[in-house]
Amino acid sequence: MATLVVHSQTSSAQDAEALQQAFKGWGADDKAIIAILGHRNVHQRQEIRKAYEEIYQEDLIKRLESEISGDFERAMYRWMLQPADRDAVLVNVAIKNGTKDYHVIAEIACVLSAEELLAVRRAYHRRYKCSLEEDVAANTTGNLRQLLVGLVTSYRYEGDEINVKFSQTEANVLHESVKEKKGNSEEVIRILTTRSKTQLVATFNRYRDEHGISISKKLLDQTSDDFHKVLHTAIRCINDHKKYYEKVLRNAVKKFGTDEDGLSRVIVTRAEKDLKDIKELYYKRNSVHLEDEVSKETSGDYKKFLLTLLGK
Amino acid sequence: MATLVVHSQTSSAQDAEALQQAFKGWGADDKAIIAILGHRNVHQRQEIRKAYEEIYQEDLIKRLESEISGDFERAMYRWMLQPADRDAVLVNVAIKNGTKDYHVIAEIACVLSAEELLAVRRAYHRRYKCSLEEDVAANTTGNLRQLLVGLVTSYRYEGDEINVKFSQTEANVLHESVKEKKGNSEEVIRILTTRSKTQLVATFNRYRDEHGISISKKLLDQTSDDFHKVLHTAIRCINDHKKYYEKVLRNAVKKFGTDEDGLSRVIVTRAEKDLKDIKELYYKRNSVHLEDEVSKETSGDYKKFLLTLLGK
Repeated sequence: MATLVVHSQTSSAQDAEALQQAFKGWGADDKAIIAILGHRNVHQRQEIRKAYEEIYQEDLIKRLESEISGDFERAMYRWMLQPADRDAVLVNVAIKNGTKDYHVIAEIACVLSAEELLAVRRAYHRRYKCSLEEDVAANTTGNLRQLLVGLVTSYRYEGDEINVKFSQTEANVLHESVKEKKGNSEEVIRILTTRSKTQLVATFNRYRDEHGISISKKLLDQTSDDFHKVLHTAIRCINDHKKYYEKVLRNAVKKFGTDEDGLSRVIVTRAEKDLKDIKELYYKRNSVHLEDEVSKETSGDYKKFLLTLLGK
Repeated sequence: MATLVVHSQTSSAQDAEALQQAFKGWGADDKAIIAILGHRNVHQRQEIRKAYEEIYQEDLIKRLESEISGDFERAMYRWMLQPADRDAVLVNVAIKNGTKDYHVIAEIACVLSAEELLAVRRAYHRRYKCSLEEDVAANTTGNLRQLLVGLVTSYRYEGDEINVKFSQTEANVLHESVKEKKGNSEEVIRILTTRSKTQLVATFNRYRDEHGISISKKLLDQTSDDFHKVLHTAIRCINDHKKYYEKVLRNAVKKFGTDEDGLSRVIVTRAEKDLKDIKELYYKRNSVHLEDEVSKETSGDYKKFLLTLLGK
């Protein structure tokens, strides 16, 4: 379930006018901006952007960027983009910046449905004038490239069928490969990038039944290089993406200095989807409310905005 | 330009009834079947199939399969399917039969537009309850797998932009790899599976300018294994798919015993698209009309059907 609290709206034009009011004078009225945009769903936000453009001949997102700044600006920017567009930006930043955030690419590729991932690839074309896989492939090599390109280009079957024989043989392939890290990465890549999620979950379950430990825990014991880190992220996202997001949030707030990118990414991306479930998982796991942690670790308008999206 | 001559139709229901008439008695009236279905476009054929199902509670394609046989049946079956469905079947047959017709997979992946290829992947899900790349990957290994999976999962950018620097450096990468066959296939795969077709054609042109020979001719000199054969097909299809199809037809009719699969595939697939251009290329190259060759090399209803699709 979502955390976003959607307020009923008179009209997109009225919202656009209220935003224009908030931009007036020295320093924008951030409270007013949050009170409007922090309570509109994805459809409403696109309509407001359209209305703003029509009335003021100016892109609302560009205006917001010039009015607000820092983590608040970055989070608001992602919030205002359409989901496919936002994910295209997240992948592009992950590829092009120096920090090698490959896990963000794996996360998007593995959490989205087949059609949602296609929408991201289409958005990538429009925005960057090349294909998503082109940029991923040009900035990686070896088995990391194979794995990442395979994940972002997948169009997984989404039926419920499970092939028990495959889950057994492929659990063994995964085990052999994870055991000795120099194992057959080619087959691991094939399995992870082409099988349906339902089939993969059956394979992971089989792995745990046979070896008494989940494959993601097993990988964690050994993970060091980028390939194995991406493998780990992909498996976690396919297995249970809410649990995965809970951990991203936990790491983000626990980290010295707070990882604002991770924090914003999960909250902005999931607020309209399943952030309520993720919040509950967070409380179960940490015995503290996510909102309280966010309150403690962030400040100012950025904090207000995140708490608004968290449904506070 | 297309070769298909579309006749105006009173109604799909009337066509369905005429077909039902043609099925009556001992042996179907193949002439009547060709006179109808050989002159209907893809939309009309789907409407006839729907009308037939409604009136007779029977799938027209299944009925056709039981009424006609041999090469005629196979060609008619492909003709009656929607294009994306037909290509899904062609890929599946190419993967699953023993003859390893990998070039058919490369052909479909490289000739179709990004959205058309997606439609084939969707059709594959519906028909085979798994993903296309899943079947391709499970039935191949090594660099052949990487190349084929990369081709079928590509969603190429379709803008006109050309990066001159890339075309230069990547023409060199291709040259180095083709020169010594043990070259860097990883980079060749990256280039062939992710760059836009416009960019690739610029790269191939650059190759020819630098080395005085086209890359596909160069590859042909050396081609022996499946990987290099698929590479050759992919390059030819991206470079000029009409010239490629002309050669498939030429090989099909010149072959001892005639390659009916290749012949039917090209004629059925291109009759509504650009078979007229391919026919003209054929005449230019061979100084003989394709229709005359088809007349000589085939017989019976199969021949009549192909000639009808060829616009005779």
